[in-house]
Amino acid sequence: MSNKPTLHTSLSPALLHLYDLSSSVVVIIDVFRATSTIASALYNGAKCVIPVDSVPKAIEISKNIGGIAAGERDGLIAEGLQHGNSPLEYTRDFIEGKTLILTTTNGTRLLHMALDNNADTIVSGSFPNLSSVCDFLLQEKKNVVLGCAGWKDRFNLEDTLFAGAVIQRVKKQFTIHCDSSLMAETIYDKYKKDLIGFAPGLTHYHRLVERFGLIEDIKFCLTPDVADVLPAYSEGKLIAK
Amino acid sequence: MSNKPTLHTSLSPALLHLYDLSSSVVVIIDVFRATSTIASALYNGAKCVIPVDSVPKAIEISKNIGGIAAGERDGLIAEGLQHGNSPLEYTRDFIEGKTLILTTTNGTRLLHMALDNNADTIVSGSFPNLSSVCDFLLQEKKNVVLGCAGWKDRFNLEDTLFAGAVIQRVKKQFTIHCDSSLMAETIYDKYKKDLIGFAPGLTHYHRLVERFGLIEDIKFCLTPDVADVLPAYSEGKLIAK
Repeated sequence: MSNKPTLHTSLSPALLHLYDLSSSVVVIIDVFRATSTIASALYNGAKCVIPVDSVPKAIEISKNIGGIAAGERDGLIAEGLQHGNSPLEYTRDFIEGKTLILTTTNGTRLLHMALDNNADTIVSGSFPNLSSVCDFLLQEKKNVVLGCAGWKDRFNLEDTLFAGAVIQRVKKQFTIHCDSSLMAETIYDKYKKDLIGFAPGLTHYHRLVERFGLIEDIKFCLTPDVADVLPAYSEGKLIAK
Repeated sequence: MSNKPTLHTSLSPALLHLYDLSSSVVVIIDVFRATSTIASALYNGAKCVIPVDSVPKAIEISKNIGGIAAGERDGLIAEGLQHGNSPLEYTRDFIEGKTLILTTTNGTRLLHMALDNNADTIVSGSFPNLSSVCDFLLQEKKNVVLGCAGWKDRFNLEDTLFAGAVIQRVKKQFTIHCDSSLMAETIYDKYKKDLIGFAPGLTHYHRLVERFGLIEDIKFCLTPDVADVLPAYSEGKLIAK
């Protein structure tokens, strides 16, 4: 038997309970756009990101501690908030030294599910911080669960592509008996040379680009290492580790 | 807007509730081996297949109506039964004119979930009856949900490969906004030229072949149209339509 740690991929929050998180590093993946935005804000000097599951909670916390409350519902800035879920909104000029309180539909929910399932360690992953995630997993040498946020519990390709990118870089150091991971790497390998060119093939692309014109967001979210920090979760906050 | 019917793929029984089954043809897919075995038995003249969710129920029904009770648990013929879940067991000599009462872990459960979710029409699909399934979907012109049985709610590649095979043949007649379906077709397209050669890459293969030596089963289950009937569910039974 190999004594390498294991790696599994959970393709939807509705499948997360199938994996043992208590001895694992869980990577929260919400490529469009929560985890890309978290990477962007921390890379540009945000003090921390507080992920919350509702708009009123985001507003309440921002009033109490003086942070920036942000979030979207169905692709638009949520009522009562001034800032949304675009990674490009969080430039250094704007976010440096500040706390971002972020509420998103899928990513925040998955993170709280990982907490409820006693995850050993939680970090967030996206193409903009791909290398930091991979370096951390290789260095920790613990079991890994790559948790795709999906879309309202449905499978999506962009989160799977990111899982595949991680797997392709770290697989030699892990034992992988997991069809989801084999599939993710296959899909990534097929499209890796031109992720942005493939983007119009994603169901989610049409919602973001055709309805909201967010093509620059998409490009940022599919570009490796443009905001290369490791957001690690501890006591209610994501901080750059 | 296109007025073609929609097609979605559910990658696990734990995701089936996300899809509207009440106006859909649901294809139950359990490639290794329940739906391949159902195709084999009906192709070889079984009167019908009664899928049940427990061994005692299978034994009770077989006593009442005189059929063959069969099923496995964890890859072995279940205690109290004489027949298992191999499609090669159900030759014409053995099964013609008889009723097969079959209990399996994943496929039977998914079928009952589809019933509980008020599926409009339920058929079972596998490579051995690929063409019959595709012909039926094209002829019905209803919405379609391809339901992968997976393995204890986890995603598996072999059911996804079959979903991809169906999609590649019928996609022009359907509206497909579903990343699971796009992924399934991509995976199938990559491996379709040599499914049997790819089989050792499947997590499930090791369980079936290395533990139980079922290489001939695997070959049968990955060969298109070797038992080309359409098993359709009605009033507790699957019959060749």
